[in-house]
Amino acid sequence: LSDNEHPLDFLFHPRSIALVGITTSNPTHWTRAFLEALIEFQYDGALYLVNPKGGELLGKTVFRALAEVPDRIDHVVGLVPATAAPQLVVEAAAKGARSIHFCTAGFSETGEEEGIRLEQEVLRQARLHNIRIIGPNGLGVYCPEARISFGVDFPKDTGTVGLISQSGGNGNSIIRQAALRGIRFSRAISIGNAADLDESDFLDYLAQDSQTKVIAVYLEGAKNGRRFLDALRLASREKPVVLLKGGLTEGGARAVSGHTAALAGTQVAWEALVKQFNVIAVNALEEVVDVLVALQMMAAPSGRNVALLGAGGGASVLITDAFEKHGLKVPTLPAEIVTKIRAYTPAAGNILRNPIDYSQSMGNPKTMGDTVRLVSEWPGIDFWVGFVRPGQSTRPGGMSVHALPINEFARGEITMGKPVAIVQEMSLFPDDAKEVHENIRQCVRAGLPVFMSFPSAANAIDLVMKYRDAKAR
Amino acid sequence: LSDNEHPLDFLFHPRSIALVGITTSNPTHWTRAFLEALIEFQYDGALYLVNPKGGELLGKTVFRALAEVPDRIDHVVGLVPATAAPQLVVEAAAKGARSIHFCTAGFSETGEEEGIRLEQEVLRQARLHNIRIIGPNGLGVYCPEARISFGVDFPKDTGTVGLISQSGGNGNSIIRQAALRGIRFSRAISIGNAADLDESDFLDYLAQDSQTKVIAVYLEGAKNGRRFLDALRLASREKPVVLLKGGLTEGGARAVSGHTAALAGTQVAWEALVKQFNVIAVNALEEVVDVLVALQMMAAPSGRNVALLGAGGGASVLITDAFEKHGLKVPTLPAEIVTKIRAYTPAAGNILRNPIDYSQSMGNPKTMGDTVRLVSEWPGIDFWVGFVRPGQSTRPGGMSVHALPINEFARGEITMGKPVAIVQEMSLFPDDAKEVHENIRQCVRAGLPVFMSFPSAANAIDLVMKYRDAKAR
Repeated sequence: LSDNEHPLDFLFHPRSIALVGITTSNPTHWTRAFLEALIEFQYDGALYLVNPKGGELLGKTVFRALAEVPDRIDHVVGLVPATAAPQLVVEAAAKGARSIHFCTAGFSETGEEEGIRLEQEVLRQARLHNIRIIGPNGLGVYCPEARISFGVDFPKDTGTVGLISQSGGNGNSIIRQAALRGIRFSRAISIGNAADLDESDFLDYLAQDSQTKVIAVYLEGAKNGRRFLDALRLASREKPVVLLKGGLTEGGARAVSGHTAALAGTQVAWEALVKQFNVIAVNALEEVVDVLVALQMMAAPSGRNVALLGAGGGASVLITDAFEKHGLKVPTLPAEIVTKIRAYTPAAGNILRNPIDYSQSMGNPKTMGDTVRLVSEWPGIDFWVGFVRPGQSTRPGGMSVHALPINEFARGEITMGKPVAIVQEMSLFPDDAKEVHENIRQCVRAGLPVFMSFPSAANAIDLVMKYRDAKAR
Repeated sequence: LSDNEHPLDFLFHPRSIALVGITTSNPTHWTRAFLEALIEFQYDGALYLVNPKGGELLGKTVFRALAEVPDRIDHVVGLVPATAAPQLVVEAAAKGARSIHFCTAGFSETGEEEGIRLEQEVLRQARLHNIRIIGPNGLGVYCPEARISFGVDFPKDTGTVGLISQSGGNGNSIIRQAALRGIRFSRAISIGNAADLDESDFLDYLAQDSQTKVIAVYLEGAKNGRRFLDALRLASREKPVVLLKGGLTEGGARAVSGHTAALAGTQVAWEALVKQFNVIAVNALEEVVDVLVALQMMAAPSGRNVALLGAGGGASVLITDAFEKHGLKVPTLPAEIVTKIRAYTPAAGNILRNPIDYSQSMGNPKTMGDTVRLVSEWPGIDFWVGFVRPGQSTRPGGMSVHALPINEFARGEITMGKPVAIVQEMSLFPDDAKEVHENIRQCVRAGLPVFMSFPSAANAIDLVMKYRDAKAR
């Protein structure tokens, strides 16, 4: 153990992995997804496959038992049925493994006696053999720098967001949406039932991990309230922590116990906690992503005054309401600035106020760049939001983000260094949705944060400003 | 005027229309969209085109002036510049027109003296010549039964929702999204600056119109507070009224004055009003559509207890929280029902509670139909919500709505007549978005209401239940 290596760091850098219980017959089976991901990521440690049927898979030998693998195994991914799990712990120990991730479900989350007993037995064997368990009933580890992933399509480049998700599905959703919007991850862990290694362990790890600058957590319940409290206090002192707590309602708490067998805790207790520790608490997966984008893709505005630029008079009214409802201000532009813009912009079909509605004159970057510069020079605004809403024109179809001066927005000498965010509203129509997707990618390439609706942009920017204000106090 | 014909009904059934100021040179110009729509809808009255340049357009003569048209004109669509608008009123009167819709912008909404003067002059001429004005700065009339539309892609079949939108763009958004989700319109009017005919006139019309069963309104400000109050009171007594009020914040009110030159009014006054009249007040365009779907596509549940069915443990927790936050209840299933389901369903990877998480056993309609029947027979639930969330699996890609027992949900003898709603969450990824779109269409074909997120479904169902409860008192 080096000086600054955390005792759990080995989990993220195994030198050999065995996938035990991988299906050889059915290529679309869920157990195969783990192999697909490791191949796609070009995992460069030793990789072994184990299935009692033996044979070959994608040119690799399938060993009939873990004991037959002619190598030391660092880490085992357990894809065997729950009933075979305790025995696998014993076998893994015999091969020198330090950790097993059980993806398998059928343990305490079933609420049935047999599943609960099996989980206890796995834990007993793990303690006995000094092996750490991730899961069961979780997707395990994503660590791009170690070329390990549970999602075949996750980004291969590394980043600075550390994610803990009790739910594999919710973890997948967060990673995919965040990745599209420019976020990259240092590590992500889907902890499932968290029978051994739990949210407190990983929170402690991410708080100390130098690769991780921001921590995001989807939590259903803390295994040990006291330990989690301590871990959350320390983590939130070190880095911003974004927390989505599932199961805050009575029915939600029951759903939690059925999903990961965790104890959900009361809403009041959680609210007090997040306030005390300046944790950024959110209510939906999309909101986790929004806050990550606001934290990582957008510079901190020096105040709450925003200039809005886009197309659509009705859209202008709604985005203004959305921002002002979140305590952000949309100030009137001074008459002398309006006069200057008016000199080169027709009045009919445009609205030269704030929001600046460029419905008729969109798409001329030179003109719009001039406008952005003129307004940016005014000290009455602190940041910009450009907006694009598909489906509002008389003809069907989207509205390109090219309509906005993306490149000008990305240049500090035009915006006077004032931060910029883009709202690209979503669409139910496939052609528009394709354009929305392309627009997001274009904004991300220009280094701009993208939000998917007026209220969600206002909410995330507000939450992050409040977080920074509280931090500064 | 027949006995039950409203004095404004002529606006929706003109026997001849002239598009004055339509561009002959540029096929993608906005003025051409009106012609495209009337052709697409096979408008069966007489249709005339007017432009000083003359010539031909799509095989139709372009007259150099309205006076040259050899026919009486019922209705004029004014696409001329604002400066030419007052003169057009005089010319239209000479042709016997009873109404002009001015789409043109550049009037009072500019806030400039010239625009305000022109609007006043249009109004003066209209009064003088007994012509009614729709707009200016609005998109006019959509009336499928009369084959009139401002959107080329709007549904051609008629329905029972009447829409008033002060903003053309917001009207377009509402109509397109609602249409995809199964809603059809009796009439829609985009009123713009509402210089002459305003929200009160059309509210009064829709309240009395026998084709209209539900009224939706996007309003920026009432021209005449007292009249609007009366119209809203009467309308909400007759039919459900869904109201999105733009400009409730200080900045939003300023944006309103720049958009349609209306006076926005204070939030407090509006809240009191909607409460008093049992108007369904919403905060976003998508929410207008959600409420229309809940009102028109879903039977009224007899209580607030919901059974949830879908895939994903984390998704199950989040949908439960979303519904319980809106005062809907997700009760525990009785042990005897769970035992019966368990007899034919594996425990591992499924969660047989409420929500019923069929992650492993999705896609078997027979089995799921049995489950729906078993749970429906229990008096502890009042309605169903099936949910599909793309992007949560280990492999990228959507999750088909086929995974849900759509056909079984649509059959009253299986659900015991209990209402059903589907949540099909959206996706940023084009392939998934395509599937989302197809899933929506499939649900609509089965006659099921579709919502786009957990919170939006819970919110709309809650709002409509509250509306019906208050109505019944």
